[in-house]
Amino acid sequence: MALGKKLAAEFLGTFWLVLGGCGSAVLAAKFGGDGNPLGIGLLGVALAFGLTVLTGAYAFGHISGGHFNPAVSFGLWAGGRFSGKELLPYIVAQVLGAIAAAFILYHIASGAAGFAIDPTAAGAFATNGYDALSPGGYSAAAAFLCEVVLTAFFLIVIMGSTHRNAPAGFAPIAIGLALTLIHLISIPVTNTSVNPARSTGVALVVGNGAVSQLWLFWVAPILGGLIGGIAYKWLGRDD
Amino acid sequence: MALGKKLAAEFLGTFWLVLGGCGSAVLAAKFGGDGNPLGIGLLGVALAFGLTVLTGAYAFGHISGGHFNPAVSFGLWAGGRFSGKELLPYIVAQVLGAIAAAFILYHIASGAAGFAIDPTAAGAFATNGYDALSPGGYSAAAAFLCEVVLTAFFLIVIMGSTHRNAPAGFAPIAIGLALTLIHLISIPVTNTSVNPARSTGVALVVGNGAVSQLWLFWVAPILGGLIGGIAYKWLGRDD
Amino acid sequence: MALGKKLAAEFLGTFWLVLGGCGSAVLAAKFGGDGNPLGIGLLGVALAFGLTVLTGAYAFGHISGGHFNPAVSFGLWAGGRFSGKELLPYIVAQVLGAIAAAFILYHIASGAAGFAIDPTAAGAFATNGYDALSPGGYSAAAAFLCEVVLTAFFLIVIMGSTHRNAPAGFAPIAIGLALTLIHLISIPVTNTSVNPARSTGVALVVGNGAVSQLWLFWVAPILGGLIGGIAYKWLGRDD
Amino acid sequence: MALGKKLAAEFLGTFWLVLGGCGSAVLAAKFGGDGNPLGIGLLGVALAFGLTVLTGAYAFGHISGGHFNPAVSFGLWAGGRFSGKELLPYIVAQVLGAIAAAFILYHIASGAAGFAIDPTAAGAFATNGYDALSPGGYSAAAAFLCEVVLTAFFLIVIMGSTHRNAPAGFAPIAIGLALTLIHLISIPVTNTSVNPARSTGVALVVGNGAVSQLWLFWVAPILGGLIGGIAYKWLGRDD
Repeated sequence: MALGKKLAAEFLGTFWLVLGGCGSAVLAAKFGGDGNPLGIGLLGVALAFGLTVLTGAYAFGHISGGHFNPAVSFGLWAGGRFSGKELLPYIVAQVLGAIAAAFILYHIASGAAGFAIDPTAAGAFATNGYDALSPGGYSAAAAFLCEVVLTAFFLIVIMGSTHRNAPAGFAPIAIGLALTLIHLISIPVTNTSVNPARSTGVALVVGNGAVSQLWLFWVAPILGGLIGGIAYKWLGRDD
Repeated sequence: MALGKKLAAEFLGTFWLVLGGCGSAVLAAKFGGDGNPLGIGLLGVALAFGLTVLTGAYAFGHISGGHFNPAVSFGLWAGGRFSGKELLPYIVAQVLGAIAAAFILYHIASGAAGFAIDPTAAGAFATNGYDALSPGGYSAAAAFLCEVVLTAFFLIVIMGSTHRNAPAGFAPIAIGLALTLIHLISIPVTNTSVNPARSTGVALVVGNGAVSQLWLFWVAPILGGLIGGIAYKWLGRDD
Repeated sequence: MALGKKLAAEFLGTFWLVLGGCGSAVLAAKFGGDGNPLGIGLLGVALAFGLTVLTGAYAFGHISGGHFNPAVSFGLWAGGRFSGKELLPYIVAQVLGAIAAAFILYHIASGAAGFAIDPTAAGAFATNGYDALSPGGYSAAAAFLCEVVLTAFFLIVIMGSTHRNAPAGFAPIAIGLALTLIHLISIPVTNTSVNPARSTGVALVVGNGAVSQLWLFWVAPILGGLIGGIAYKWLGRDD
Repeated sequence: MALGKKLAAEFLGTFWLVLGGCGSAVLAAKFGGDGNPLGIGLLGVALAFGLTVLTGAYAFGHISGGHFNPAVSFGLWAGGRFSGKELLPYIVAQVLGAIAAAFILYHIASGAAGFAIDPTAAGAFATNGYDALSPGGYSAAAAFLCEVVLTAFFLIVIMGSTHRNAPAGFAPIAIGLALTLIHLISIPVTNTSVNPARSTGVALVVGNGAVSQLWLFWVAPILGGLIGGIAYKWLGRDD
């Protein structure tokens, strides 16, 4: 497969991840107003994020591998499953896809009367954050630990479910639903990133605090991805 | 497979989509009254729409291909996966199935004392709409953009997950859950169409505004379907 | 496979369906009291019913075919997939499994202080009903129509997803999630039966009105099952 | 596969089960405060527990078999699917993984201002309990019966879906979603264990009553596991 098509697939897949995951959070999580059970809530948002990857991996996996996430690309590289040569172009495509989706989502969301973003509110426009910008008021240390551990396990599930000894074809289900699970755990902590591209796209729409906290959502997920990739490389080796 | 059986499958599959998706919205979304968390809410409706397609695709996919949606038929035709000769009969069967389901659903729903449809209410009887008929008050431009983008990605997931390089047998899961995802994002915007037949069926029951806004739910999904079909045709080509 | 093992599998599978589906409704749907969103609500009950069949079909399907439902056995017989000789023993095993589960569930449920069943309340102990015993106050005619149509489509999904041209191995997912979908639509109408054994088990615990309305939940599902079985027999035939 | 890698897989898989299942309960179930429908509720927690096993089984199943649960190891041993020689090391690895996850989870959870555990509250820090420590106030007898029956069926689903006659590759879906189903039924009763390691990990963080009730969550699940393993051994035997 030509690199251009792989990058197009990564661009589109990450676009889909941000449009679907962040879109459900922005447009539908609190539908009807605070306290209205019609809205999809954190459970619906968790499902949406997972389904972007489940569907994207079936659609694009046979083209690009279906990473849609710089931490995944780093982790697969550390795990010996992805070429270092393609690491940088993949990450550029992912970040551009995430930014494009965030701006399209802004365009849709602002079509409702009274729409406004308060950049000082935790989780505004589905951004990630810690301390005052954590949905549940979690410290930077808790946020960092949480993002590292969850991204490490995300990579372990990715490496394990795509291992040659795992049943073929099921990996997108396992990987997508692992992302749902990760959101079920950690939206209150950081609004859940485990994906630097996803964090960057919406942060650029919001600006201010969300941008100033972006460093954590690059460092912690990539660190977790490297740990998970290396751990499974040992675990899955024949011996 | 004879055309008659294909059309019967498309009729029944679209019937099932409208009965299940619109039925859950009409009968169960707000069960117990506004604000009662017993009701299935937008999350339940999103799941129901997706499951109609997941189950319908396993039941009818090997007969008709399992489109159940004129925008899908157009998109697959643009993507080189569906014969132009069968396009019109498929669409007729889909629309008739949707209309039949909407009237059966009306028959069931009106079996509860006090049932009434207010055609001026956004989303009445699960109809699609924009401006005053958008559940969240979204403009026609936002509604149009939303329907185009989501239908384009719907076709990309359909084309990608049924590609010869994708793992066999999993496409109904990916496609059905993509429709769930699309609803998780966009019920507040347009009550989610991405399917002109589904919009038409329930609009004919409600009449008035819902019918006058039907044009958007034919034009935008079909345009999105064509874009998605053409985009993936390029992406999935060997070279 | 010996008939004794098939019947044991049908007994256990129907036990699991009633324990899981009705159990989630009785124990967890309104957890924390009316209006508390901690409870699993209709969405959780719908998921539970579907998962009993999804999991039961993977566990027992290769033993008994995984019917767990007299309407399914009748429908598969009408569709030419099940021997008339085994119809009666299957139904007896299913009903006995449902009754046993209902009494075990009663034993667990009554372990909470203050537990009581009000047999005049719609949906008491997860029973099915119409008119005054319909959760949403639906008439007998609406209830009958709803049960016939949904059971017919249930059989269509069962026949279609187990057809030799459908992808192998996925049928339990399609069938289980079809049952979830059916519950997402129709819990407000009849508390959802589509299964005479399930209705009978809990009705015998409650007595009174639930028993006097049992006839509908035998006649309508079996009629729907026959219609679905015959319809798909034609649809899935090679010609 | 070397025993060391199997034990590492069991450690990590049980870690993931407790971090994900108990983590979602502790961090996200009541997000926004009591009565706020944004929180994931019992439905979200049930889904999270199931997804830990679904994803863990795809990631680790081909290494260790993917038990993550002493009751499962005992049940598979009774069912003739697991060697008695590995029983004790597996259980030690599972318990250590559960304890490690509980302490990491405590570390994350305590990063929110105002976090505190009340060991006299039912379900505190996702612990299991009966009588005063049962979320719904269920007696020890009801709790015992519930844990035995549900663990027995859990083993039946595990044995059945991994039987050589069951479709290959689907077992993690059936098994994971069976655990979701079990939680949909029984969180109100015992906060759902069916897994002595999971109960032990969080009980050691909380101390007091949770530890004094641990005996039931070892005895009942293991008894249920043995019953289920033996029952399916007979059911699945060719004859």
